[in-house]
Amino acid sequence: MNVNGRHYRTIWTEGEAGNERLFIIDQTALPHAFQTLELSSCGDVCQAIRDMQVRGAGLIGATAAYGVWLAARTAPAGNFAAFMERSFAALRSTRPTAGNLFRALERQARAIAGKAQTEAIPAALAEAQTVAGEDAEACRRIGTFGLELIREIAARKPGKPVEILTHCNAGWLAFVDYGSALSPVYAAFDAGIPVHVWVDETRPRNQGARLTAWELGCHGVPCDIIADNAGGHLMQHGMVDLVLTGADRVTRWGDAANKIGTYLKALAAADNGVPFYVALPSTTLDPALRDGMAEIPIEERSPEEVRFVPGLSAHGPEEVLICPEAASARNWAFDVTPARLITGLITERGISPASEAGIMGLFPEFA
Amino acid sequence: MNVNGRHYRTIWTEGEAGNERLFIIDQTALPHAFQTLELSSCGDVCQAIRDMQVRGAGLIGATAAYGVWLAARTAPAGNFAAFMERSFAALRSTRPTAGNLFRALERQARAIAGKAQTEAIPAALAEAQTVAGEDAEACRRIGTFGLELIREIAARKPGKPVEILTHCNAGWLAFVDYGSALSPVYAAFDAGIPVHVWVDETRPRNQGARLTAWELGCHGVPCDIIADNAGGHLMQHGMVDLVLTGADRVTRWGDAANKIGTYLKALAAADNGVPFYVALPSTTLDPALRDGMAEIPIEERSPEEVRFVPGLSAHGPEEVLICPEAASARNWAFDVTPARLITGLITERGISPASEAGIMGLFPEFA
Repeated sequence: MNVNGRHYRTIWTEGEAGNERLFIIDQTALPHAFQTLELSSCGDVCQAIRDMQVRGAGLIGATAAYGVWLAARTAPAGNFAAFMERSFAALRSTRPTAGNLFRALERQARAIAGKAQTEAIPAALAEAQTVAGEDAEACRRIGTFGLELIREIAARKPGKPVEILTHCNAGWLAFVDYGSALSPVYAAFDAGIPVHVWVDETRPRNQGARLTAWELGCHGVPCDIIADNAGGHLMQHGMVDLVLTGADRVTRWGDAANKIGTYLKALAAADNGVPFYVALPSTTLDPALRDGMAEIPIEERSPEEVRFVPGLSAHGPEEVLICPEAASARNWAFDVTPARLITGLITERGISPASEAGIMGLFPEFA
Repeated sequence: MNVNGRHYRTIWTEGEAGNERLFIIDQTALPHAFQTLELSSCGDVCQAIRDMQVRGAGLIGATAAYGVWLAARTAPAGNFAAFMERSFAALRSTRPTAGNLFRALERQARAIAGKAQTEAIPAALAEAQTVAGEDAEACRRIGTFGLELIREIAARKPGKPVEILTHCNAGWLAFVDYGSALSPVYAAFDAGIPVHVWVDETRPRNQGARLTAWELGCHGVPCDIIADNAGGHLMQHGMVDLVLTGADRVTRWGDAANKIGTYLKALAAADNGVPFYVALPSTTLDPALRDGMAEIPIEERSPEEVRFVPGLSAHGPEEVLICPEAASARNWAFDVTPARLITGLITERGISPASEAGIMGLFPEFA
C-alpha cells in the first residue's frame, strides 16, 4: 500500500532487536486524518481491536498475535503463566466473529508452549511477524488469482471498464497488506485493465465510504460510493460485472460470514446472474464449522453506532444524531451468506467452488 | 396523526373562504424540530417537493394539486393560460417517479379545463381538497384491510409481538394522513394487537431513522431502527413475520417502484418465506405501464445526499462529510421490485395478488 508516496503496512514494528515498538494506522481517524498509533501492551491491543482502530479479518488476527508478544513482554516475573492465560482470554473475547483471531491465538499458544518468559518473548514476536508476513503474502497471491477473473470479463467488453461491486472494506486496511477482495482489483488496475468499483458505504460503520473509497483513491482506482440500498438496482440494470467481498469466517461447507448486508448483495447477484466471489486467505477458513447460519456467532454491537454518524462538519470531526433522541436501535455486525449463493472462493491457492469438496481440494490439510 | 396531543394532517389550509392559506410540516427539519411552513405560490410548492420538505407518493400528489390552485390564484390576469401551462410543466418536472404526482395533475387539468381564472381558482382548490381527502380516506381503508393480515399472524404466535419490517417512510408523513404501509400497523396497535416494527434507516435520506421512527414514536408503537443492511439477517433468523412497504408507482403487471433498497428486502423475504406486501392507494397505480424495470423512470439525485449526513451535533443541526473530500458518489432514489417477489398489494379496495388479473379484479376501471 502507498500513502502519500510512502509504503505502509497496517501494523508494523520499529526499533532494534529487543526494543521493538508496535505501530498501527488508527482506522477510526480515516479518511479525514491519517494517524499512526503505538500499542504498548496487550490491553492496548484489546482496546484497539474492540474500538475498531484496527479491523478486518486478517488485521485483527495479526494484531492479536502481536498482542500475545506484548503480553509476554509486560507479564510480571513470577506470574507469567497466569498472566498469559488472562491475556489470551482477553484477546479471544475482543470480537467473536472473525476466524483469523482464533487461528492466530492458537498459533501463538503453540509458539510459546512450555517456554519460560525470556524465551517466550522473542518466540511470540517471531510468530507474530510470521503471521503478519503470511497474511500479506496470502493476500498478494489472492490478487494474482482474482486478476484472471477480471481479465476474462475485460476481454468480453473491450474498451469498457470492468464494473466491480464491493461491500465493506476488504482492502489492505483489513489485512496487513494488499487486501482480499480488493487485491484482485489492484492487480488488475496495475496490469492496465480498466476497472471501476461501486463502493457500498456499509452502514453502520461506513467502512466502505470511509476506508475503501480512501484506499482506492490513494491507489488511483476509479470508484463511486453508493448507498448500501443501491446495489440491487445496479445489478438489475447490468451495471455490475462482478461482486467481490471479503469474509470474516468461512465454514467447511463454504458458508461465509461477512459484514452485515453481504447476504442481500449475494441474493441480488444470484437473481441477476452476476458472479459473486468471496476472497479470503485460508486463515479465515474454520474447518470445525459446517452450517454457517447455525454455527457462526454473530456479534451485536452498540446501538449508538446506528443512532450516530461520525464525519467531518464545519467544526471538525463530529458525530450527528440521525434519529429521534428517544429512538432505540439494534446493531448486528455480520450476516452469513450461504454457499449456494457464492460463485467461488478466491484463496491464496487458487479459486474453488464454495463447497466442502472445493475447499478440501485446495486445502487437503483441513480434511 | 397526533403530534404532542394535537391532530395534524401533513398538508392543510387555514383561513376564510377566498383567503385560504396553505401549510405543510417541513419534513427536512424532523425529527429534531417540528416546524410548519406556509407555501404561497406554485414556485414554493415546486421547491418544497424538490427539496423533500414534502415527500412520499400521496403527499407529493396532494401538494402538487394545491400547487395548481396557488398557480391559478397568482397567475397574472390576461396571461392565465400560458402561466398555467408553465406551472403544470414545472410541477410535473419536480420528481419523475411517483405516480400520484401525475395523477393529481391530470385531475387538476380536467378540473380547470375551459374555465376562466376566477372560476378556476375555487375549482382548483376544491379539487385539491378532494385529492387530499381521498388520499387520507384511501389510507384509512388500507389500514382496515392490512389489519386483518396482522391479526392472522398474531393468532399464530399468542403473547408475542408481530414483527414487521418496513423500509423508508410510508406512514402518515408520506400521505395526507394514516399512511400506506404503516396504516395497518397503527390499526393493529390501536386494536390492542402487540406489534414491533424494524425500521430500516433508509440511506441516503434516512427517512426511516428520521421520519418513521419519529411518527411511530409519536403514536407509541414499539420499534427499533436497524441499518438497511440488517434485514436479511433478521429474516434468516425468523425475526420478521411480515414486510410492509409503500410504493411510488405500481404498474398494471404489479411491479412496484419504491425507495431504493426495497428490492433487496423483497429478495430476502422470498428467500426466507416471509410475506412481502406493498401497500398503496390506487392513485399510485399506473395502468399505462407494464414492465416496471424497463418503463418506470428512476430519479437520480445529488451525490451530496450520499456524501453528507445531516443530523444533530453538539452544535445543533449540522451535516457531516462521511467520506474522503475528493470521493465521488452516485445516488439513485428508487428501485423496482418485480411482481414475482410481492405476496400481495394492500389497497383501499382490499388485498390483491401483484398481477394484472389481481389488480384489474379490484380496479376494473383500469382494464
